[in-house]
Amino acid sequence: MTTIGIVGAGISGLHLGLQLVQAGVPVTIYSPQSGDELAKGRIQNSVAHHAVTIDRERRLGVDHWPVEQYGYDSHHHYFGLPEPIVFRGDFQQRSRAVDYRIYLPTLMADFENRGGRLEVRPVDVADLEALSEHHDLLVAAAGKYSLGEFFGHSPRRDPLPGPLRRLEVGFWTGIAENDPKGVSIAASPGHGDLLEIPMHSFDGHVTALLFENVPGGELERLVDWKVDEDPEGFRSFVLDVLRRHYPLTYARVDESEFGLARPGDQMQGQFTPVLRNDFKQLGNGRYVLAMGDAHSTLDPIVGQGANSASYSAQVVGDTILEDQSFDLRFMEKVALRRRERVEAAWDWSNLMAGPPPQHLLQLVGAMAQDQALLDEFTWNFNFPVAQWDILATPERVAAAIARSQAR
Amino acid sequence: MTTIGIVGAGISGLHLGLQLVQAGVPVTIYSPQSGDELAKGRIQNSVAHHAVTIDRERRLGVDHWPVEQYGYDSHHHYFGLPEPIVFRGDFQQRSRAVDYRIYLPTLMADFENRGGRLEVRPVDVADLEALSEHHDLLVAAAGKYSLGEFFGHSPRRDPLPGPLRRLEVGFWTGIAENDPKGVSIAASPGHGDLLEIPMHSFDGHVTALLFENVPGGELERLVDWKVDEDPEGFRSFVLDVLRRHYPLTYARVDESEFGLARPGDQMQGQFTPVLRNDFKQLGNGRYVLAMGDAHSTLDPIVGQGANSASYSAQVVGDTILEDQSFDLRFMEKVALRRRERVEAAWDWSNLMAGPPPQHLLQLVGAMAQDQALLDEFTWNFNFPVAQWDILATPERVAAAIARSQAR
Repeated sequence: MTTIGIVGAGISGLHLGLQLVQAGVPVTIYSPQSGDELAKGRIQNSVAHHAVTIDRERRLGVDHWPVEQYGYDSHHHYFGLPEPIVFRGDFQQRSRAVDYRIYLPTLMADFENRGGRLEVRPVDVADLEALSEHHDLLVAAAGKYSLGEFFGHSPRRDPLPGPLRRLEVGFWTGIAENDPKGVSIAASPGHGDLLEIPMHSFDGHVTALLFENVPGGELERLVDWKVDEDPEGFRSFVLDVLRRHYPLTYARVDESEFGLARPGDQMQGQFTPVLRNDFKQLGNGRYVLAMGDAHSTLDPIVGQGANSASYSAQVVGDTILEDQSFDLRFMEKVALRRRERVEAAWDWSNLMAGPPPQHLLQLVGAMAQDQALLDEFTWNFNFPVAQWDILATPERVAAAIARSQAR
Repeated sequence: MTTIGIVGAGISGLHLGLQLVQAGVPVTIYSPQSGDELAKGRIQNSVAHHAVTIDRERRLGVDHWPVEQYGYDSHHHYFGLPEPIVFRGDFQQRSRAVDYRIYLPTLMADFENRGGRLEVRPVDVADLEALSEHHDLLVAAAGKYSLGEFFGHSPRRDPLPGPLRRLEVGFWTGIAENDPKGVSIAASPGHGDLLEIPMHSFDGHVTALLFENVPGGELERLVDWKVDEDPEGFRSFVLDVLRRHYPLTYARVDESEFGLARPGDQMQGQFTPVLRNDFKQLGNGRYVLAMGDAHSTLDPIVGQGANSASYSAQVVGDTILEDQSFDLRFMEKVALRRRERVEAAWDWSNLMAGPPPQHLLQLVGAMAQDQALLDEFTWNFNFPVAQWDILATPERVAAAIARSQAR
């Protein structure tokens, strides 16, 4: 009987584990933390799941947060130019954001309750060969513990020289919701962007503020502030940043209620997005497959990381259910099948997090006056390939604008 | 308005043209011959269309030869060993073979009647640049006139040193059908294989005999015989070959009726199968996309050429309907999307036409005793990827045999 080992209990590891359990394939997930430990820990991210991912959750039987109650409808865009630009794109189906300290432990419990085996232990590169002997296939689905670096950068893209943005994310109370309920995407040119995300957390609705700060700009202080040492000063500074850079969010702040949802509900950091090789052969001849953060990491500016990881898990799961010979051919099949979407998400995220090229500004200008084009861009948060079809070159942006105007 | 130019009116050119016409995209097919000229010419091949291709024909509205009447059900295998092996695999849905002198002109007429533009003129490499200026996208779908060589051999596979088989195919009368109606696949080890195919031609049912002769073997005489100079001697030699090498076909011959369906209804030749690059940029910066025989040619031993070309046409058509920017990204999308199936058909055809490796003989031995495995192999004539999943390595063959025995 085929058995699969998955290193990592993030969204890709859990979605793959749940798909395999559903199909009756024995599977073990190795996680450095238990669900309880995760639930008590720091926030993990502020990611939204888009409709294609929620569809996958329905098929896996883990859609515990129906979009009717937990979802949102729109992207509220703000560009802080001398003459500010404000417009709103609507989704065809709702997206949804749930605190991963709730989401991941819930899916870990689902996985175990359905017969999956969860083993709480860290796994590092040195452990892979021994572990590979216990399973027909070993999948590395965690970027931590040097597992990601093990696979090496893919020759299909040039490595980035460093982080595109420096990040600070916190879960806050005291911010009234957008109407219609949605994510705010606000640009403060030269300084950074703010993503304001309606999030379900332990005490119900909170607002995630993800500050995507340009390296070297004045908003880097958000990332370097020692929050635990001076939480009140930090709160004041965030308010000040909102007032000066992100006024439409600030306008919805009730200062008497404004604060982190729980002490420590924030995270600071930066990383260089990578696209890694799809697999690597071990000394014993077996292959380890990379998935999720072990395969590619994305700047969160367009919220694609979790959605891309879940997609990748489905490609891996579908291919396992089709073909149980885990040789070079299997690895190359997976690589080929997920390449287009994974690379489009990587390219798109890097474009949006880097210095904006002229054609991106042209698209923004066109979208401000073309609701169909704007809604297409919004809905394409589900479809990175279609989004990159629009954005990949100046000629493609011009063609998309012309096509929309001709409709 | 986007316009597409297709060079070549074989199955891939016509299927793509018909899909585009169906979607309202202006398209011109360039063919060196009119439908009438094709109908009066030499036979083109003896190819069968499998269910996946016939499904595509239904969607294109060109399924003029319903499988209930024209199709067949089975593969009758014969291995001429000292102790002959005989077994039969059944399809889940019928395949069908129609004389391309009927098939192609009929689809050419469909194409024109639905608004497609057919221009009868030869197109060679020197014409591509001028032609590319007349269309948004130019697709080369013909292997003749050096168009294929233009693209160059794909670095993804080593070139073959020469033809794997030397071919002679004729349409014959006087051979009773198999029961159930089907293709006979008969091996005369060391000499070659005979594919006997129930074919619909001008006067109704005929039997295509495709002799796949091993280079250097005694059956090469079939390929070198000057048939027009000595048709009666050729007929006698064919009968003699059937008697000595392919006795199960010979047993169904009525010698008083046996003969070519029409004078000249045969073809001799050989070629080296190639896998070429997917596209090439012209001096004017535009790209030409390769499809069908311009992209890859297959030894006909497992009848995949037309089915692979039709599949490729659908990938190209779907991608055109999704994305009208015909730049490098478009070309790479097409290449990525069709790669797995096109390469599997190429690999599988070459395995079957080359000297049989031990693991192929093991599979044959296992299929002789395992009807489920045999029917899976037969049905997989629709699914080259699944077939290559079984055949790609000795380990995969062993796994497929073990898996079937465990069912």
